[in-house]
Amino acid sequence: MLGTTTWAIPEGYIPVGSTGPEPELESHETVCLLNAGDETAAVEITIYFADREPAGPYEVTVPARRTRHVRFDELDEPEPIPRGTDYASVIEADVPIVCQHTRLDSRQAENALLSTMAAPIE
Amino acid sequence: MLGTTTWAIPEGYIPVGSTGPEPELESHETVCLLNAGDETAAVEITIYFADREPAGPYEVTVPARRTRHVRFDELDEPEPIPRGTDYASVIEADVPIVCQHTRLDSRQAENALLSTMAAPIE
Amino acid sequence: MLGTTTWAIPEGYIPVGSTGPEPELESHETVCLLNAGDETAAVEITIYFADREPAGPYEVTVPARRTRHVRFDELDEPEPIPRGTDYASVIEADVPIVCQHTRLDSRQAENALLSTMAAPIE
Amino acid sequence: MLGTTTWAIPEGYIPVGSTGPEPELESHETVCLLNAGDETAAVEITIYFADREPAGPYEVTVPARRTRHVRFDELDEPEPIPRGTDYASVIEADVPIVCQHTRLDSRQAENALLSTMAAPIE
Repeated sequence: MLGTTTWAIPEGYIPVGSTGPEPELESHETVCLLNAGDETAAVEITIYFADREPAGPYEVTVPARRTRHVRFDELDEPEPIPRGTDYASVIEADVPIVCQHTRLDSRQAENALLSTMAAPIE
Repeated sequence: MLGTTTWAIPEGYIPVGSTGPEPELESHETVCLLNAGDETAAVEITIYFADREPAGPYEVTVPARRTRHVRFDELDEPEPIPRGTDYASVIEADVPIVCQHTRLDSRQAENALLSTMAAPIE
Repeated sequence: MLGTTTWAIPEGYIPVGSTGPEPELESHETVCLLNAGDETAAVEITIYFADREPAGPYEVTVPARRTRHVRFDELDEPEPIPRGTDYASVIEADVPIVCQHTRLDSRQAENALLSTMAAPIE
Repeated sequence: MLGTTTWAIPEGYIPVGSTGPEPELESHETVCLLNAGDETAAVEITIYFADREPAGPYEVTVPARRTRHVRFDELDEPEPIPRGTDYASVIEADVPIVCQHTRLDSRQAENALLSTMAAPIE
């Protein structure tokens, strides 16, 4: 039972511009999911906005003993997340996982990075 | 009940200079608030300084199932937060929320970013 | 009782070089202390190294309802912390506080920033 | 008993390129371990991937009252961690420690940094 089943990330913003070679240095945000357990994790991501009802759930599967680094700009079912828009996310899994948030920002000529562990929800 | 009602952010500093196009790449600090619940959150932010009594409370509303990314340099009631000054913040809500702290720093030619989840207070 | 009395920061490294105007953009690490309570906090910082016994305690006072952002390169009693050396820190207070860690790195031409909440110790 | 015995870091990625002088400004990821206790810590790091079984354990020793900043690109027994590959890590110790994660990214001309406390696992 490594981790917990619900995590929250209030910060979300996919910058509009990029200066590096794509896709690796394209501006993007990622949620890194670790399933260190022995059962497959079925994960649902819900996206919250400032001025409309939430989108999702976006469904992601993380096999047992695997990590999956999910780019928010590649989530497109049921709908893509717009660039240049404030959002937040809640990650819910059917088995305990651990979640970390990262942004690579290449709007100006050089990279900037941020990261934080997501907030575990009891 | 997603989150908790009190959060603290000891680091606060709005840089004086910026080099990017405003307002998006102007140097700023943000607290991202997520209210994933079904009731409106009435939020009060108190700002602590090194050498004077605290300022505030600054009142912010986050509707149910919404996120709000609040720039500290746009808080101006009861008083604006001075640039180039160390501060800290405490966020209190009447329903559980989740809080994350971010700074975009464009004092030099390229962006720098930092982010961390705020500290949940039991 | 906002916070806890013991916090740990395993990462510590004061870069040797800087390119920005001093002291604001000189490379440095900071621990931001928030005392949101009504009693003065007497804080002791102990510095751990890779290959010698710990240094300190470094004594810092944070008045009631105040924040203090302490630069590690300005701690010099009982001894300065060497630059270019891995270290870690433990912060202990006699009343509950909240601690956050930040590094400004200006070794190359542009700034880089990192920050994380310190680890609360039960 | 300062800390806990199990920590997780879902984000892991050692960039392929670097522009700074090596080894200090070579792109790298680090886990900073703090053993503030009075007994030597025997630490095992397990590396998780997206598409294969985990690697490790990698064995690290942290003496009493010492910190050790471990670069993932210097772990080579039982096998090196490939660059340009998503991974995650779990750190397990036989006595309580505290763990923090940092990346220095120098793929473009200037540095970018990220850091977060690892997730403590109960």
